[in-house]
Amino acid sequence: MGKRVAVVLAGCGVFDGSEIHEASAVLVHLSRAGATVRMFAPNIEQMHVVDHLKGAPTEEKRNVLVESARLARGDIHDLSQLDVKQLDAVIFPGGFGVAKNLCTWAVQGKDCSVNEHVRATLQAFHSERKPIGLCCISPVLAAKVFPGCEVTVGHDKDDRAPDVPGTAEGIAQLGCKHVCKNVNETHIDEKNKIVTTCAFMCKAPLHEIFDGIGAMVQDVLKLA
Amino acid sequence: MGKRVAVVLAGCGVFDGSEIHEASAVLVHLSRAGATVRMFAPNIEQMHVVDHLKGAPTEEKRNVLVESARLARGDIHDLSQLDVKQLDAVIFPGGFGVAKNLCTWAVQGKDCSVNEHVRATLQAFHSERKPIGLCCISPVLAAKVFPGCEVTVGHDKDDRAPDVPGTAEGIAQLGCKHVCKNVNETHIDEKNKIVTTCAFMCKAPLHEIFDGIGAMVQDVLKLA
Repeated sequence: MGKRVAVVLAGCGVFDGSEIHEASAVLVHLSRAGATVRMFAPNIEQMHVVDHLKGAPTEEKRNVLVESARLARGDIHDLSQLDVKQLDAVIFPGGFGVAKNLCTWAVQGKDCSVNEHVRATLQAFHSERKPIGLCCISPVLAAKVFPGCEVTVGHDKDDRAPDVPGTAEGIAQLGCKHVCKNVNETHIDEKNKIVTTCAFMCKAPLHEIFDGIGAMVQDVLKLA
Repeated sequence: MGKRVAVVLAGCGVFDGSEIHEASAVLVHLSRAGATVRMFAPNIEQMHVVDHLKGAPTEEKRNVLVESARLARGDIHDLSQLDVKQLDAVIFPGGFGVAKNLCTWAVQGKDCSVNEHVRATLQAFHSERKPIGLCCISPVLAAKVFPGCEVTVGHDKDDRAPDVPGTAEGIAQLGCKHVCKNVNETHIDEKNKIVTTCAFMCKAPLHEIFDGIGAMVQDVLKLA
């Protein structure tokens, strides 16, 4: 029997939603492993809409669940409907949407608030001892909800990854341990069953990010 | 030296733009092969915007180049700027956006018109004897622009692929040859240097679609 895995999305597009290639990589690796995937997103308005050509916010309004449905080809559910009893693991791809729509890290850093359904989802899997997989900026969700946990957002001595040191510092200030890892590696917090990998936090070629996410998916499934 | 490959997008989302997982798969395989990728999309309004949660059109207006920039993480150019001399091959991922924004196949079938820059791009690579890769519904572009060419959009005896027989019939009516292929296979029209694979036209697991697109990318690079 394949594992039943929830994938939680945050919109569709790196600058205001889920990072598209990270989300797609998660789904490809889950498919290859024979997992049954169920996708979710919060039914809320995006923090803002970014014109990805200009890299600047627009006046538009878009809904996180509706835009996430683009990645899910329509097969997606309101995160408030997630039932942890029906699932074996949960994975959060990255992208700025995680730090803008699932929590407010992009604006408030370590003092951020976490969306109530995102927090409830994380706590439900944690309480049931079911694994949680996170990549890119998503590990900040675990750092905020589970003080003392261990995560990676990359390698803070890599000059190509300018966002890592500040993010790692915020994670440490929350009482968590940041572990430096390369793009092809994961960190497993065995105690909390949290698996993290840095993905696009590192400036690596796309296929290396794809493979690193594959390692994360494999580790999550082993713990499930 | 890695090959220089243009990837032409049609928006961002299966129902009104490029199919996201096909586009991502193309980019992962090109990255692994060491290719240099340059992304393009026409700077035009989408035919319409589809709410992917409801599967129904909305009143919104979106621009193909701006939405395609989500897939390209901002690094994309107006298709009218494409210079075939700077490139070794071109690949068109699928999705309804191809049949709605790059041409009007979704509305007019074989009597469709093709966007002028899309037509010019295809003709430029063809004239230079540089390979053209197409997947899913994109092969209809080649069928319309190059009468007599050979393409596949899948296996028309597969009950899980209800869209294939009608599409294959339209292709035949344009004077082209439709060749039945499975999701893991490509068809290579050696004379025209056109490589096609069915991708999401077949109802296969995502990792099989990913691998089939990998085969198409490899065949395109071999011809380049």
